[in-house]
Amino acid sequence: MLTIISWLDIIGVAIFAVTGALVASRKQMDIVGFVLIATFTGIGGGTIRDLLVGATPVFWVKEPLYPLTCLASAVIVYFTAHFFESRYRVLLWLDALGLAMFCITGAAKALSLGVHPGIAMVLGMISATFGGLVRDVVCNEIPLIMRREIYAIAAALGAVLYVGLVQLDLPVGIPALIAFLAAFGLRASALVWGWGFPVYKARPGRDYPNE
Amino acid sequence: MLTIISWLDIIGVAIFAVTGALVASRKQMDIVGFVLIATFTGIGGGTIRDLLVGATPVFWVKEPLYPLTCLASAVIVYFTAHFFESRYRVLLWLDALGLAMFCITGAAKALSLGVHPGIAMVLGMISATFGGLVRDVVCNEIPLIMRREIYAIAAALGAVLYVGLVQLDLPVGIPALIAFLAAFGLRASALVWGWGFPVYKARPGRDYPNE
Amino acid sequence: MLTIISWLDIIGVAIFAVTGALVASRKQMDIVGFVLIATFTGIGGGTIRDLLVGATPVFWVKEPLYPLTCLASAVIVYFTAHFFESRYRVLLWLDALGLAMFCITGAAKALSLGVHPGIAMVLGMISATFGGLVRDVVCNEIPLIMRREIYAIAAALGAVLYVGLVQLDLPVGIPALIAFLAAFGLRASALVWGWGFPVYKARPGRDYPNE
Repeated sequence: MLTIISWLDIIGVAIFAVTGALVASRKQMDIVGFVLIATFTGIGGGTIRDLLVGATPVFWVKEPLYPLTCLASAVIVYFTAHFFESRYRVLLWLDALGLAMFCITGAAKALSLGVHPGIAMVLGMISATFGGLVRDVVCNEIPLIMRREIYAIAAALGAVLYVGLVQLDLPVGIPALIAFLAAFGLRASALVWGWGFPVYKARPGRDYPNE
Repeated sequence: MLTIISWLDIIGVAIFAVTGALVASRKQMDIVGFVLIATFTGIGGGTIRDLLVGATPVFWVKEPLYPLTCLASAVIVYFTAHFFESRYRVLLWLDALGLAMFCITGAAKALSLGVHPGIAMVLGMISATFGGLVRDVVCNEIPLIMRREIYAIAAALGAVLYVGLVQLDLPVGIPALIAFLAAFGLRASALVWGWGFPVYKARPGRDYPNE
Repeated sequence: MLTIISWLDIIGVAIFAVTGALVASRKQMDIVGFVLIATFTGIGGGTIRDLLVGATPVFWVKEPLYPLTCLASAVIVYFTAHFFESRYRVLLWLDALGLAMFCITGAAKALSLGVHPGIAMVLGMISATFGGLVRDVVCNEIPLIMRREIYAIAAALGAVLYVGLVQLDLPVGIPALIAFLAAFGLRASALVWGWGFPVYKARPGRDYPNE
């Protein structure tokens, strides 16, 4: 299981780093901006998870492979992003992949540190969503987590399933596989069919200005 | 005293969570957005306090009651917010209540960890103001802390009074009560009468563009 | 060497605090806003460095001199900023000074905690750039790190030089001096001559809207 989790984790970092670099390309940044945003996005969620549970130094301070992965991802995107017809769709789909990976690896790391299973679910969701949130706040884009389509709940589903299934003593890799498919499937459905929850409307037709 | 502090703390979390959910309602988010923003706001200030003093895992990782309180607050607001005539005024007053509670519980927690009294005052102010700051930055509202009216200084007053009074060996609960009344009273006065400090004006009549 | 590093560190905090107060003056905040933004900026980068490596309580919780320095800087700027013809240019140049100091002190602190030299370089860069990033995000200015001109790379140069040179057993203070001159020189050149890397342009002439 450890192998599958580590494997998912480094791929997830690379994928999120690519989404960060794609946002940098949309903002027409220079190569330094690509590297910075790719790194924030790739390791941001896991960094916040580690800080919250007190697993310091955080993971990438102990393992330089992670920042190097972000660096490589940023450079590759800088020289290849123009091959894609719609970088925004690529971004959304890669973000969905990374989300489905990180809700599992985040929950797994939290469990390995002995926290309460319910909190491990929350930390899995945080790992999956905060890298993208930091990316969007720093770049002044509307955070995906704020959009109408199902997003955070897909990460929550994956984390809950994973934490629940690892209690059942299933064969190695099965909980991660099921949780991954559920989380990615839900987010993918939301992307394809625009699934979302109803938004709050107190009094239809009335606008809520900032003051 | 411990009882009063714990009691203030959980009520403060619920109150700040409600303010977060009210901002979510103003932004017409879905139920997931309500839960996320309520949770950021309810536990954000205390989380940053715990990270800064190294009290990790942070408080809510050890006590799932806190996230559950935020969850419940968000759901209740989602189904009841339309009963209020002006959700923005409710938000401002609840925020004032939470502010007056958290400056005390934050300072008390810092003192219990043995930090310098002056730093405990700063950490009390941080606990009281950062949850709301995160709420407003994530939701792209103008942070209350940036407004003209007295805000952060009310939290500072409460924290300073509390830390000062606990040195005096008063009966249990008296320092918290006095500090609460002072902080809430000052913030409430600012809300009612628009009290504020003069803003900086280098050369009246001149505008300061972004460049 | 310790003396030089500590000396650079406290001056760097004061300088960054002044840049924060200058942004507060541009935003026409009150004196409380000056103090808050000055403090975020002065101690923000070092705080994040300490959190990431797990050096908690963070440096200023153990040493009240740092917050007091920020407080004093804010008050001085509040009463003197109107003497400057262009506060924005003063801000840019002081930020460059602080940047060149913090990339060194940040890397030195990381090295003293025994982290991998490559990671010490990253942490030096983070110490130098995150205080200003927090300042700009909270104040809703375009982060300097997002601008076209060379910025983060100057901090990276200073951190890399410092970490590399301390391995060479040079006389005390020489690595810090060389690294400082290189980082400040590069950033100053970028300010004077507008040096920057080419920005990403996939298809010239096409705009990239937010959706």
